[in-house]
Amino acid sequence: MDANKIISDLNSLREKSPLVHNITNFVVMNNTANALLALGASPVMAHSREEVRDMVKIASSLVLNMGTLNAPWVESMLIAGESALEMSIPSVFDPVGAGATPYRTETASFLFERCKPAILRGNASEILSLANKEGGTKGVDSMAQSGDALSAAKTLAGQSGGVVIVSGAEDFITDGSRVVTVSNGSPLMGKVTGMGCTATAIAGAFAAVNPDPLMASISAMVVMGVAGELAAEKSSGPGTMQLHFLDCLYNLTGEDILSRVRINSGI
Amino acid sequence: MDANKIISDLNSLREKSPLVHNITNFVVMNNTANALLALGASPVMAHSREEVRDMVKIASSLVLNMGTLNAPWVESMLIAGESALEMSIPSVFDPVGAGATPYRTETASFLFERCKPAILRGNASEILSLANKEGGTKGVDSMAQSGDALSAAKTLAGQSGGVVIVSGAEDFITDGSRVVTVSNGSPLMGKVTGMGCTATAIAGAFAAVNPDPLMASISAMVVMGVAGELAAEKSSGPGTMQLHFLDCLYNLTGEDILSRVRINSGI
Amino acid sequence: MDANKIISDLNSLREKSPLVHNITNFVVMNNTANALLALGASPVMAHSREEVRDMVKIASSLVLNMGTLNAPWVESMLIAGESALEMSIPSVFDPVGAGATPYRTETASFLFERCKPAILRGNASEILSLANKEGGTKGVDSMAQSGDALSAAKTLAGQSGGVVIVSGAEDFITDGSRVVTVSNGSPLMGKVTGMGCTATAIAGAFAAVNPDPLMASISAMVVMGVAGELAAEKSSGPGTMQLHFLDCLYNLTGEDILSRVRINSGI
Repeated sequence: MDANKIISDLNSLREKSPLVHNITNFVVMNNTANALLALGASPVMAHSREEVRDMVKIASSLVLNMGTLNAPWVESMLIAGESALEMSIPSVFDPVGAGATPYRTETASFLFERCKPAILRGNASEILSLANKEGGTKGVDSMAQSGDALSAAKTLAGQSGGVVIVSGAEDFITDGSRVVTVSNGSPLMGKVTGMGCTATAIAGAFAAVNPDPLMASISAMVVMGVAGELAAEKSSGPGTMQLHFLDCLYNLTGEDILSRVRINSGI
Repeated sequence: MDANKIISDLNSLREKSPLVHNITNFVVMNNTANALLALGASPVMAHSREEVRDMVKIASSLVLNMGTLNAPWVESMLIAGESALEMSIPSVFDPVGAGATPYRTETASFLFERCKPAILRGNASEILSLANKEGGTKGVDSMAQSGDALSAAKTLAGQSGGVVIVSGAEDFITDGSRVVTVSNGSPLMGKVTGMGCTATAIAGAFAAVNPDPLMASISAMVVMGVAGELAAEKSSGPGTMQLHFLDCLYNLTGEDILSRVRINSGI
Repeated sequence: MDANKIISDLNSLREKSPLVHNITNFVVMNNTANALLALGASPVMAHSREEVRDMVKIASSLVLNMGTLNAPWVESMLIAGESALEMSIPSVFDPVGAGATPYRTETASFLFERCKPAILRGNASEILSLANKEGGTKGVDSMAQSGDALSAAKTLAGQSGGVVIVSGAEDFITDGSRVVTVSNGSPLMGKVTGMGCTATAIAGAFAAVNPDPLMASISAMVVMGVAGELAAEKSSGPGTMQLHFLDCLYNLTGEDILSRVRINSGI
């Protein structure tokens, strides 16, 4: 794959500054908004049933993240997700903690089936739980390696007609037939809360400028991983990591991407 | 205008450490609380209908911010705002995203009319939308320059009997007749989420110690802008900017203000 | 007391990475999650009545923090707290702002009585208000010194059968009869919002690995205080403090603890 396509996506994102509508969790809202802003997108957080349909209408993509779900938020995610589907606005779904409790597992399945997200992103436990409709997640942390969930990811991609990203030390991205592996990133990213949620939001930003969800997902995971590597080199722990990550997203150059990208794919 | 008045407000804030009651959005709660603490105020976040009236009663000012509004929060903002009006406790209102969706535009008008805030702070799109009761905001980001909204700001100040701040590269502050322009700040501030919300909260802090909302607004926007300039000089991106901004608020001296203040006014 | 017990608790925490279930406030959720992750625990935030019982079931401890309480959250805290009690999973309760409004004071009493937390942590005003069922808190900030609340803390420990921590420049930890004083920490910690909430969460992490709530509380307050001291030495204000604190938690060594621990106890 030609890494210049990723640079072209990033340039496009910075030029267009697309509106990315997020219905996400309380833990990461600030991080998510800051990552999107640093990257060049224009984030908005809005979750009220009275307005989500109107907000989707003016947005270039929708991000749904069920991290701190409850009934009214799930209802709003459903309205927004179905609206996006109907209006052909790409949505990205993060089934945070699917597998940890029955409520999470069921809600994840329900939203996935009804919203048919262009991109689904989760860790291995979440993807396995969504495919198998059963438990096995430690809170919001994965108990499996990303590669273990590849077959589940392919099945889910077949069901939604979209792309599935399984995040981990290696990220697997599949549209059900093709598989791309991204090996960028740093272990320190796992010590900052909500880095997975940030990946989901960044996938939303790239989906807003690239209509091909496979390519948007690749760009997102590479940009995320390269910024994470650069940030980790400057950081002495997860606190400084958080900030350097935003600075690195903001200052990321094509050169950074070309010199660090680690993709394994047949495309 | 004599810049020593700003220093005197800042000293007063640090001495009295007034309780500032915030009903604000999920994205910025942490930033807002930290900015108020760094500045010397004592922030409290409380949104439950069961307690907002009691909290207003013991507070020195009230900050209402509808960034992640929904029905119960709007109800609490109304109770708190009307209580503050009745008890002559100054309130500051931030109509985040007014103009982006009908729900936001209508709610902003409703709260503004009922609560008659001592200070209204918004970006140009929000102020225009509030004055004209129609749309034109890109999510929560402005599509207009602050100067474009000056006439709308004067109209709104006339309606509330208070002061209106239009934030932007230049901030315009008006009580309907007088206009003060503050040109402090840095473009990097626009890359940190919720900086506008922080300005609103800081206006709340100054309103708690200065009964003149015009002067409180000037002090707030100058302190905000000068701290932003100092922070931007030390920052390599929006991540580090966030922290240096808090450090700079905390360490801000009268000398910093005197040497950097950029006000244009007839007063 | 042998400080090696604290190091042993910390090592145990890092090895086991226990799942700590938090129902906490909007202001600090991100900080709390990051502090727990930096320390080595596995945090999860989940507040929906549909799932809190299931989440408690798989957790090693429960943290309840009523900072931005409202009726549905209080209901969920009650379900979770009573479930934890029934399943013998240790819970830690933070009655944020008890004494500031009648709603807070009553809710704090109600939750404390029904959930009988293994550890209760508050500032002096909150502990006094909980013991006396009356007001006297400035928003969420204490108006009393920690030592003033020692007798109230002993009474409360007697009522719950657990341990009470009164935080302040000096922290008092009591099980109703024994009293341990921890004098670690830095004044800059008081300028970062939610540091008290972080202490509560860290107590939850230690309670997950040490069944003795007195020892878990001591370990938590020493680790918190030592990391705070180390962070303050590197910080130029409350902004940088926030991050260095996380880095210091992450990098904390046994040597750091041995060389800095300041405990006064007869045990």
